[in-house]
Amino acid sequence: MPLDKSTHTEIFTALDPAPRLLMGPGPVNAYPSALQAMATPMLGQFDPQFTGYMNEVMVLYRQIFQTQNRWTLLVNGTARAGIEACLTSMITPGDVVLVLNFGRFGHLLKEISERCGGRVVTIETEWGTVFEADAVRDAIKRHRPRIVATVHGDTSTTMAQPLAEIGAACREFDALFYVDATATLGGMPVEVDGWQLDAVTSGLQKCMSGPPGSSPITFNDRVADLVTSRKHIEEGIRPSGYVAAPGQRIQSNYFDLAMLMDYWGPDRLNHHTESTSMLYAARECARVVLGEGLDHTFARHQLASAGLRAGLQAMGLKLYGDEKNRMDNVTGVYIPDGVDADRLRTELLVDFGIEIGTSFGALHGVIWRIGTMGYVCQKTNILRCIASLDAVLRRNGYGAPAGAGIDAVYGAYDGK
Amino acid sequence: MPLDKSTHTEIFTALDPAPRLLMGPGPVNAYPSALQAMATPMLGQFDPQFTGYMNEVMVLYRQIFQTQNRWTLLVNGTARAGIEACLTSMITPGDVVLVLNFGRFGHLLKEISERCGGRVVTIETEWGTVFEADAVRDAIKRHRPRIVATVHGDTSTTMAQPLAEIGAACREFDALFYVDATATLGGMPVEVDGWQLDAVTSGLQKCMSGPPGSSPITFNDRVADLVTSRKHIEEGIRPSGYVAAPGQRIQSNYFDLAMLMDYWGPDRLNHHTESTSMLYAARECARVVLGEGLDHTFARHQLASAGLRAGLQAMGLKLYGDEKNRMDNVTGVYIPDGVDADRLRTELLVDFGIEIGTSFGALHGVIWRIGTMGYVCQKTNILRCIASLDAVLRRNGYGAPAGAGIDAVYGAYDGK
Repeated sequence: MPLDKSTHTEIFTALDPAPRLLMGPGPVNAYPSALQAMATPMLGQFDPQFTGYMNEVMVLYRQIFQTQNRWTLLVNGTARAGIEACLTSMITPGDVVLVLNFGRFGHLLKEISERCGGRVVTIETEWGTVFEADAVRDAIKRHRPRIVATVHGDTSTTMAQPLAEIGAACREFDALFYVDATATLGGMPVEVDGWQLDAVTSGLQKCMSGPPGSSPITFNDRVADLVTSRKHIEEGIRPSGYVAAPGQRIQSNYFDLAMLMDYWGPDRLNHHTESTSMLYAARECARVVLGEGLDHTFARHQLASAGLRAGLQAMGLKLYGDEKNRMDNVTGVYIPDGVDADRLRTELLVDFGIEIGTSFGALHGVIWRIGTMGYVCQKTNILRCIASLDAVLRRNGYGAPAGAGIDAVYGAYDGK
Repeated sequence: MPLDKSTHTEIFTALDPAPRLLMGPGPVNAYPSALQAMATPMLGQFDPQFTGYMNEVMVLYRQIFQTQNRWTLLVNGTARAGIEACLTSMITPGDVVLVLNFGRFGHLLKEISERCGGRVVTIETEWGTVFEADAVRDAIKRHRPRIVATVHGDTSTTMAQPLAEIGAACREFDALFYVDATATLGGMPVEVDGWQLDAVTSGLQKCMSGPPGSSPITFNDRVADLVTSRKHIEEGIRPSGYVAAPGQRIQSNYFDLAMLMDYWGPDRLNHHTESTSMLYAARECARVVLGEGLDHTFARHQLASAGLRAGLQAMGLKLYGDEKNRMDNVTGVYIPDGVDADRLRTELLVDFGIEIGTSFGALHGVIWRIGTMGYVCQKTNILRCIASLDAVLRRNGYGAPAGAGIDAVYGAYDGK
């Protein structure tokens, strides 16, 4: 095709970023096969090949979420889109929503629940800790919420909230339990059925090792019944004689789970046009994770975190937060006195090609967050991170005992 | 990594779909370089390389949208996500919204506007036609809407609504003019500034020849001022002492344009995690379109549609809709009597690898829709489509004059 560029057209060069090892709290490096999957050519959204892939994605993510839930599908947006899809479909304006707030993403659940019209009650705990189940049960008993919402692992504090007892308390008081498992799915057990979680959402860009932009979600019949009671099929595609359900219409069209059920279910009723390449990526990420095996994957994350933490401590650095509830895939570490935190992060990025995370709110400038998520979570990367951090800290005036960090990582991997 | 697959794990085979030529109303085949771009490794969302790419995307889409609008960015979702982001951010509950309804996607704008709390007034015109500017101006004068919303090209009817005079009428009566240009951007002129369009949204999967799942949008300062007056930065990332704007909080967090402005602007305030691979694709699609040149691109679409239409008519088939307002990238054609419409489409798909479109509502089973969009819009594909359609029609009992369709396509391309 001949070009007839205007002299003012500005088109830049082809993509060619310097490579990065992403050891922040996500996004992380994607599986090479997931990147390749995205280069697969397009299919029409109702091509039997494509609807077949959609069905396979449902089967794959049931296994990832450890659930029998029929409604296990993708929301076409980032992890936040999945959160909003569940909350806006589950919360009827005026409903009492109890949010367990133990970090930045608890604030987010509160904020989204409010925008959905929920009457939000929160309970709070000090950053770096999680809730005792009894305290949550007491709050449920006191406030009698229709919905209880919590983050599973909040990367802002590196803490993971145990969920099984809270799931039981929600059933006891007939509340629906929503969990944001963005940062844990694929890196730590998320036992949707075993822990009685009613709706769970996630993202690809953390331990699933895909790109951000697709949100796997699952919900059970308790939630499906609720959203079906609010189902209003949009004009233009309604069957003739259609009568909408009696419940209040969901305030978002894009995030309407009842319509997503019709799109992913056998009716295949037109809604959005499924994001082809992101579905390809989601499918491939699940295949890799399941191919490795969930138990093996979880053990790999535990071992890598143990290695990283041993290395950091051997360098004389102090770890952040309640030891027994730390996530297995991200570690908070205090920034040593006298070190310019942002300068060090920049040197690590530019000179060593490694990204680690800064922090939000009161922890900004106090801790760094180092992720060991998914494809990144490998011995070679833990060693590379510790060696590089040691070098950059030394250059910035903090001298760790020579070789101590690396020796400790080797030791952890050698089972010493 | 050793595998420890459970015997019950079901992981399916790697992706390997049979190739399809997508000549429906979208999604269409993506540019090969856009598919390759998506295989580019991940970057952190605040990596200067990545924020640089975000800034380049803004520059590229200003050119695609023919606008100087600073706020030209991507919504992370399908085209429908971009629509909802604009409407939910622009419509304060109770606002009068005038929707121009000339097809299935006019129904969608009505539906979304209602969910956003708008008091929706619609004007209607027969499917297959568009509105006269005077009729729209009269409706604006009568209803005095805060927002006028229309589709530019509605693929359901293959019609394109002229917009310049409506843009002028909106300014005259101080209404904001929202346009859904999903199906036209990159295939027909969308002169955002020239036609006084205040907010315009689109998708990648039609004439931009990318995957579905990213929505380029643009809006001017009239819209930016409105959404800024409703800005409520979420808890957890607010600066201390923050006071929210006086306007009513936008009912969606994910689609809050005020927060998207803070994320895409120099503040880089955390919101969602930008969908890395889809941004790569969006960037590459714009590079290819601008590299060809908009004028050349538009002419290519016109010529291909002319060729396709000549071929269809030479085969004795009748075209759908008002000739002078047809879109340049999709053609409606009546299904001949006695032909099983769905069977023919299936044979075209399975035997020839070509997908053409069915239709919605009253047009289902009455017309097919054949797209000539973006990368697909090439002489070789028009010839292949006509030859294949001729063969399949013949096999199904409809005998067009031998060779007439192909000769007419050649003739159109030869300028005869």
